[in-house]
Amino acid sequence: MKVLIVLAHPEKASLTSSLAMLAKETFESQGDEVKVSDLYGLGWKSNVDKEDFPENNSDRLLVCDASKKATRSNSLTEDVVEEQKKLLWCDTLFLVFPLWWFSMPAILKGWVERVFSFGIGYGVGVHDSTHWGDRYGEGTFAGKKAMVITLAGGWESHYSARGINGPIEDLLFPINHGILYYSGFDVLPPLVAYRSDSFDDNSFKKLSLKLKERIISLQETKPIAYKRQNYGDYTIPALELKSEIGCKCGGFSLHIEN
Amino acid sequence: MKVLIVLAHPEKASLTSSLAMLAKETFESQGDEVKVSDLYGLGWKSNVDKEDFPENNSDRLLVCDASKKATRSNSLTEDVVEEQKKLLWCDTLFLVFPLWWFSMPAILKGWVERVFSFGIGYGVGVHDSTHWGDRYGEGTFAGKKAMVITLAGGWESHYSARGINGPIEDLLFPINHGILYYSGFDVLPPLVAYRSDSFDDNSFKKLSLKLKERIISLQETKPIAYKRQNYGDYTIPALELKSEIGCKCGGFSLHIEN
Repeated sequence: MKVLIVLAHPEKASLTSSLAMLAKETFESQGDEVKVSDLYGLGWKSNVDKEDFPENNSDRLLVCDASKKATRSNSLTEDVVEEQKKLLWCDTLFLVFPLWWFSMPAILKGWVERVFSFGIGYGVGVHDSTHWGDRYGEGTFAGKKAMVITLAGGWESHYSARGINGPIEDLLFPINHGILYYSGFDVLPPLVAYRSDSFDDNSFKKLSLKLKERIISLQETKPIAYKRQNYGDYTIPALELKSEIGCKCGGFSLHIEN
Repeated sequence: MKVLIVLAHPEKASLTSSLAMLAKETFESQGDEVKVSDLYGLGWKSNVDKEDFPENNSDRLLVCDASKKATRSNSLTEDVVEEQKKLLWCDTLFLVFPLWWFSMPAILKGWVERVFSFGIGYGVGVHDSTHWGDRYGEGTFAGKKAMVITLAGGWESHYSARGINGPIEDLLFPINHGILYYSGFDVLPPLVAYRSDSFDDNSFKKLSLKLKERIISLQETKPIAYKRQNYGDYTIPALELKSEIGCKCGGFSLHIEN
């Protein structure tokens, strides 16, 4: 495998960083090639702004338009191009981050916003009456796998089906479905650790074991069965699930095959 | 009213920025006081790192712990303190941003991560067998209102109950419930605009009218009826909705009163 691990934690001695390093070692020990994008180590620039589009000479920055033009004319900034190269190189992407405010840290969100440019992460493929872009099951990263590893401060029950924070699957849906599946990845079930502030040696050992098992069994792990956009389940261009498909209940789970 | 508008868009001439300015003018025209935090204008630093805790002298950065100590010892950085002052001053908070990758832009996420520090945004109140911190209906910002104004590139149907992106209410749940309600705000229903890249004068006029109406009727607008954490609906400390409460279906909507 060719693995890209994207790490988003400011402390090298953190649980999060340790897991990223353990993932790297485990992959390498089974002969895989690994690249790590340590976003804090890279001094990653998070904020999308005019500097991202050096050849944009319009007075008014239209972000999607500028991103499209810069992607087409190969004038994206070097840091972005480097990350895109890694994404195109890999067959497996790991995002490793602490769950801050029920989502990814700003630095990782900024990595997505800048690296998944128009023509790479979105705005791919034709839009017509039978096909609404290469997305949600198609796209630049089709054929690659992605997996989230995240650490939450709260208890597992707080993130359960009836837990107050909302189910972890739903909290991660905007990432797993909205970013990773959208751009073509097959998304593996996440590895989530809870009560990350109360970890001791024993809980770290257990978690390490889980992570190793996930890596060893990665090729046989079934991705989350999100429904594909352009293969009959959704109306086009409204992109609503056809009335005969899925339960009548609401929520994100409607978009997963039973 | 005392209104804080937090704006997250790199272009002053954008639809997003225009809406923020229109909100400001509308509030002011009815005699309200308004402060604007234009995050790009401020050059907001998004990434939580060691520099945020100048008095932290531990070799290893434990983010929550460092945040708690810095909040208690009044040693948070000046930019963070300024934003906290504005939040404590206001009675109404508007977050105005483009919906990028189904969430807030990195710069705004970084504002939350740095400004909602331990002791202000989280880690407030006692934790015991009947009360699990002042959060989800209690907290520092209790008694204040908050509202999201966001602009999505996709179509409204794509964000409908059966739309492929997932329902907009659910996509915004980690923000509305997980950030705003968590820290005490009463959260008003969001104002969402769609197909933001195809706006013309007429659609801008319609949206402007909607925004003005929302501001004029703000005091009478009922907040989203999220269930309060410490008032009998949830078990403590597991924080699961009691079995007799709510429907058996899953998803975020379980946490809203019918």
